[in-house]
Amino acid sequence: MEYNRETIRALAERIYDLDAEVYRNLGSSLGRVFSEDREKCVREIVHEMEARNQGHVLRSELALISNMARTIKDREAWKKVMTEYDHILKAVSELPTSFAEGDVLNYERAELNTLSLKKRFSKDDHMVICIGRTYGSGGSEIGFTLADELKINYYDVEIFSEVLRRLEAEKDTVHDKGGFPYIRDEENRAKYVGTRQAFARDQKITVGQRMKDFSRYHGLPKKDAVFFNQSKLICDKAKQEDFIVMGRCADVILANNHIPHISIFITAPFEQRVRRVMSVNQQLTEKQVRKMLKTLDRKHINYFRFYTGLEWGKASNYDLLINSASYGIKGSVDLIRRMIESGEV
Amino acid sequence: MEYNRETIRALAERIYDLDAEVYRNLGSSLGRVFSEDREKCVREIVHEMEARNQGHVLRSELALISNMARTIKDREAWKKVMTEYDHILKAVSELPTSFAEGDVLNYERAELNTLSLKKRFSKDDHMVICIGRTYGSGGSEIGFTLADELKINYYDVEIFSEVLRRLEAEKDTVHDKGGFPYIRDEENRAKYVGTRQAFARDQKITVGQRMKDFSRYHGLPKKDAVFFNQSKLICDKAKQEDFIVMGRCADVILANNHIPHISIFITAPFEQRVRRVMSVNQQLTEKQVRKMLKTLDRKHINYFRFYTGLEWGKASNYDLLINSASYGIKGSVDLIRRMIESGEV
Repeated sequence: MEYNRETIRALAERIYDLDAEVYRNLGSSLGRVFSEDREKCVREIVHEMEARNQGHVLRSELALISNMARTIKDREAWKKVMTEYDHILKAVSELPTSFAEGDVLNYERAELNTLSLKKRFSKDDHMVICIGRTYGSGGSEIGFTLADELKINYYDVEIFSEVLRRLEAEKDTVHDKGGFPYIRDEENRAKYVGTRQAFARDQKITVGQRMKDFSRYHGLPKKDAVFFNQSKLICDKAKQEDFIVMGRCADVILANNHIPHISIFITAPFEQRVRRVMSVNQQLTEKQVRKMLKTLDRKHINYFRFYTGLEWGKASNYDLLINSASYGIKGSVDLIRRMIESGEV
Repeated sequence: MEYNRETIRALAERIYDLDAEVYRNLGSSLGRVFSEDREKCVREIVHEMEARNQGHVLRSELALISNMARTIKDREAWKKVMTEYDHILKAVSELPTSFAEGDVLNYERAELNTLSLKKRFSKDDHMVICIGRTYGSGGSEIGFTLADELKINYYDVEIFSEVLRRLEAEKDTVHDKGGFPYIRDEENRAKYVGTRQAFARDQKITVGQRMKDFSRYHGLPKKDAVFFNQSKLICDKAKQEDFIVMGRCADVILANNHIPHISIFITAPFEQRVRRVMSVNQQLTEKQVRKMLKTLDRKHINYFRFYTGLEWGKASNYDLLINSASYGIKGSVDLIRRMIESGEV
């Protein structure tokens, strides 16, 4: 449809008349948006339609008319008014200057977002779900359960370490008797406070081992080398299979490598996290748990900022954020599944 | 099922044997989680199952076994192993000390959350969706479009002001010729920078009017009186109808009054918001837009903190947060609808 001054004026008149009709039906001054001066009001509505930055005014006016219209008791009159409202709204939405214009969509971001409705998974893309979470929010359980329900792989820091160790062991043709290596990483060490660790057995490092590590990591500090190895593994896996990955800045790594994924952050109010950690670690006092959560949050923030330059847990750095205290572990899994599964239809 | 030391030990043995079976099928040291010392490993697994705080270790071990198991090429062997894995996982999940315990769910919060899967809308509850948003994120358009698609009412600050003005006008039996009052609120005044306002026509206040206002608002500053009147209106409406409400701390007001609702926060990266506001307000320079967004964010933060004591836009203060840059306006509407509609089934 072509829009010129006449069609816009005709549309403005229809809006004015719809308001008057709603008013006539309700018979109360509470039911009127525009004053009785038809010509003046129509000219104002025309202005609102022509000036893009007036869209929100027109939107509130239309919302008020339809809010009022819905209260009309007479079924026939209600139907007539709502049909006209729907037609008008459609016409307004199609205006080149209407409030429906100026989308906030970031095409680059949406292209990488496998949940986006603009772009479905292409046949070559794998479904990679990156989950960041605060400690005590149940995020790991949510990720693990989701992976199990979707029948896809689940990766966390321990599994990455183990996979990398095995890949390296294979390269070195050193035979391995199983068991998990000690993870030399402040952040992960903190995670194990007060627990006996099958995943974190200590190992002595000899000078020879230290030299071997140095050449293996190309002179990088081991912590950075581990990060880069994990990053490479995440990108490789994302080209091969569907999976869920916990933490490791995986969302940012994948975005930087232009690999499609969904990024989700899971958290819960601090008090709720304290309660959960206390119920899981019954030997810790409340004071210890509070201190541990604060330390872990700070370490998470620093780790994320160090490797990505971004703020951890800030809404605009993720696609979606879920408060697990509102849904629980099972509820959060169901919520994510609903989005993924209806998205695929 | 009763769990005692024997059933737990039997389960640990099944886990060890499953790992060995996966290893046998893959024929590589990369495919083994536990070492060859069966007795030692079984005792460790038993410990992991009995000590609640070891759940995450067992979870990673199980995930690693199933990640490996999924790579088994032989269809028969794969099926056998995965069936056993499913049985084991179910048994582990049912352990009183398993990692599935210690849910993060806040029952009080979930009870108020109309999207929660634990509790459906009761027949008396209305679907009230509270949307907070950053300026320029398209949040208002998302709320308006969602309300229109769901055929429910839409309320924003202008509509609230108008409804309150009309209710008051009716009370005073003063006849009204329509048109919107000037909104005497710093925050909203800022929203109108650079736009000609149908919603914000100026009015002169006489001394008499000021005295009348004073008694009407029981001596409260008008800003607070407006907030309290709006709060009352939100609670009243929530008992009467389904609707969407933009901002106004509606989520906190409803939670404090124990009225079920869904709270959603919509935002987008700052740069994306700048681009969107510039495309909508083409007469503003980039510098002006950046300054305006920073000012508005600060005002939002202060407003929210003043009336609720909480941090605006922080993930744990909402049920769900959406990055509109990932989905666009239409995509965000669809995402919310998918959650609500599958939630109702």
